[in-house]
Amino acid sequence: MASCSGIITLLTDFGLDDPFVGVMKGVIFGRHPSANVVDLCHGLRAGSVEQAAFWIERSYRYFPAGTVHVAVVDPGVGSARKAVAIRAAEHYFIGPDNGLFAGVIAGAPGAEVRLIDGDRLGLPAPSRTFHGRDLFAPAAAELAAGRAGFEALGEPTTLDVTSGRAEPVVGEAGIDGVIVTVDRFGNLLSNVGEALLGERDWDVIVAGGRCALLGTYADVPSGALVAVINAFGVVEVAMRDGSARARLGVDAGAALRLEAQSPPAGAGPRRRP
Amino acid sequence: MASCSGIITLLTDFGLDDPFVGVMKGVIFGRHPSANVVDLCHGLRAGSVEQAAFWIERSYRYFPAGTVHVAVVDPGVGSARKAVAIRAAEHYFIGPDNGLFAGVIAGAPGAEVRLIDGDRLGLPAPSRTFHGRDLFAPAAAELAAGRAGFEALGEPTTLDVTSGRAEPVVGEAGIDGVIVTVDRFGNLLSNVGEALLGERDWDVIVAGGRCALLGTYADVPSGALVAVINAFGVVEVAMRDGSARARLGVDAGAALRLEAQSPPAGAGPRRRP
Amino acid sequence: MASCSGIITLLTDFGLDDPFVGVMKGVIFGRHPSANVVDLCHGLRAGSVEQAAFWIERSYRYFPAGTVHVAVVDPGVGSARKAVAIRAAEHYFIGPDNGLFAGVIAGAPGAEVRLIDGDRLGLPAPSRTFHGRDLFAPAAAELAAGRAGFEALGEPTTLDVTSGRAEPVVGEAGIDGVIVTVDRFGNLLSNVGEALLGERDWDVIVAGGRCALLGTYADVPSGALVAVINAFGVVEVAMRDGSARARLGVDAGAALRLEAQSPPAGAGPRRRP
Repeated sequence: MASCSGIITLLTDFGLDDPFVGVMKGVIFGRHPSANVVDLCHGLRAGSVEQAAFWIERSYRYFPAGTVHVAVVDPGVGSARKAVAIRAAEHYFIGPDNGLFAGVIAGAPGAEVRLIDGDRLGLPAPSRTFHGRDLFAPAAAELAAGRAGFEALGEPTTLDVTSGRAEPVVGEAGIDGVIVTVDRFGNLLSNVGEALLGERDWDVIVAGGRCALLGTYADVPSGALVAVINAFGVVEVAMRDGSARARLGVDAGAALRLEAQSPPAGAGPRRRP
Repeated sequence: MASCSGIITLLTDFGLDDPFVGVMKGVIFGRHPSANVVDLCHGLRAGSVEQAAFWIERSYRYFPAGTVHVAVVDPGVGSARKAVAIRAAEHYFIGPDNGLFAGVIAGAPGAEVRLIDGDRLGLPAPSRTFHGRDLFAPAAAELAAGRAGFEALGEPTTLDVTSGRAEPVVGEAGIDGVIVTVDRFGNLLSNVGEALLGERDWDVIVAGGRCALLGTYADVPSGALVAVINAFGVVEVAMRDGSARARLGVDAGAALRLEAQSPPAGAGPRRRP
Repeated sequence: MASCSGIITLLTDFGLDDPFVGVMKGVIFGRHPSANVVDLCHGLRAGSVEQAAFWIERSYRYFPAGTVHVAVVDPGVGSARKAVAIRAAEHYFIGPDNGLFAGVIAGAPGAEVRLIDGDRLGLPAPSRTFHGRDLFAPAAAELAAGRAGFEALGEPTTLDVTSGRAEPVVGEAGIDGVIVTVDRFGNLLSNVGEALLGERDWDVIVAGGRCALLGTYADVPSGALVAVINAFGVVEVAMRDGSARARLGVDAGAALRLEAQSPPAGAGPRRRP
């Protein structure tokens, strides 16, 4: 297992208009002055564990091994849901046990889970509404500073919630997925990963709009719809130089369908590089 | 007095869409390359000294002693308002004299104030519209770098504006406060601090909606209104799994009233832990 | 030429709601753990090379010499547009060749341009939709870390796109410009730089609204329109304590006209300090 990289990432649904993320950083630097705190993002839909789980799973590997990822999308704060730390795939994850780390766990055999024990870490009793500041941030700081090893965070436990995402359904004639999130450009990001696609050519249908799965946005003229396997390995529907969200009138939660095309005899896959 | 922590926090109403905050950081790093610059927040309502003062007062203690807090909500930039540095409660504060630091001062006896003197610091004449970049950022950098001690920033002075906030009114039957700010979840944060509440049980009324003051969001069913003493010590009205702002149709500035409940004979306080 | 300052700035149109900027930072820190990564801004209008070019040109000098500025407003990602690194005015610039750096180049004689060569840098083949993460971030990290000198990034080249901005037109009776961007306060920032203005007094007209060019916002009463030469050296139309955008009903792209005033006999320039 890699030792800590010194990096602590933060992903929340707090936004950046209020100082909630800022005070989490104050707490971290108070305990670990040389931490390298990186904002992963804070603008996810409020309370959307699904969007958060989608991005955590697809983002963490771009950070060095030994990074501590703190995720606080926590609509159950103050209830009996567990506060957990996970060691998986040479990274650490800290947050509520509500499905946020389901995708990480599913792709990382041998993940270990600990119940974060504030008493053992010497923390004062947390507030009942802001565990990001009072429990997750200090636990991450202690771990990243190397003062508390992973095992010192608390007793071993298991996750109560092991699913944080809808899975695509693969049928005879196609694949049924869902739009998980929409980016600032109006691109529609689905839960259909490239591993399901094989060597075939595909059409993608969202809200009655149909387009081919090609290689990149620039493979179609300005103003046209296009589907690509995006840089995070999932099928994405975009409009070149425009917003697919606006064009199709859809948002996260909309259904997406892939239909395989019969290639012309003798032809290989037509488009994807 | 603690020496500088090396941390400089920034709170502004500039937003993050334009590079105003970014160039302030460029100026700071140019003078103090190893500074640890932390965004407290930048999305406060434009020009709202009251929101800024509310958050500065309630956020700064989460940072280590010796932190330099730069606050630039400065609708009077270019006018005769003073530019000040304050030493209070083992922290430093830098910004315009317009009430931003009223809450800090009120809670920190013995605060000292200096008039920031750009000439003495060797700064070029500032622009007339961006003192955050030309005066406050370099003064903070010099102070945090330890090149200029607090006394070297300029002559002692006093604040012209010592109030930046509405105070709650405590009467016979209740407490009248105001919603100071609304967070991304639609939670309504008031100016009523927990010190006013004693051991009694309270109902909270906003825009005709009434709810009990309980311990946390999870104490009511999904979709119900609830009031809590939030993690910053003030009364907050929330809707579990939803937006109290949307439900009640109110925003910052709305009135909030607390009414004490008569406990059943022999009962202790009913709810708060 | 200054050596690298250790600072890498990031300017994109990705916003901060998704983790695109966050994963760029993960890539940078993986290659250069002690980099100082500074967000310049990420909220520019999606795809607006003009807004980005405007701010890059006016922001970079506030950072120390030797800073590496990464700019990713890249609607042509995946097409044949070049990926370039530029050394100009003792700073480095990395991004697509689409006009982003036109203003920098125009003001920095002797700028050198290199074609970023991912193979030479040992990078894996980039995705076709996110060169910010796969090409620009790692190139910036290698350069800032000092492992790759500027010349090692790739072969010398020239820019295909050398204009990223509309230029104001100076006529007999006035100057015709355009609103390039609007800030969070509703201030309208134009492309008319102060070098065009000389010692004369000016009126500024936008959307039928006329106001005088004065020194600062506080030179007019609350609620009045005012034009100033802002802190970045361009003519800006503002409303004191309000939004010029809302008042005039205009946005980026609107025309702006300056008309010279005849000073009273014997009078000097009337207003600007």
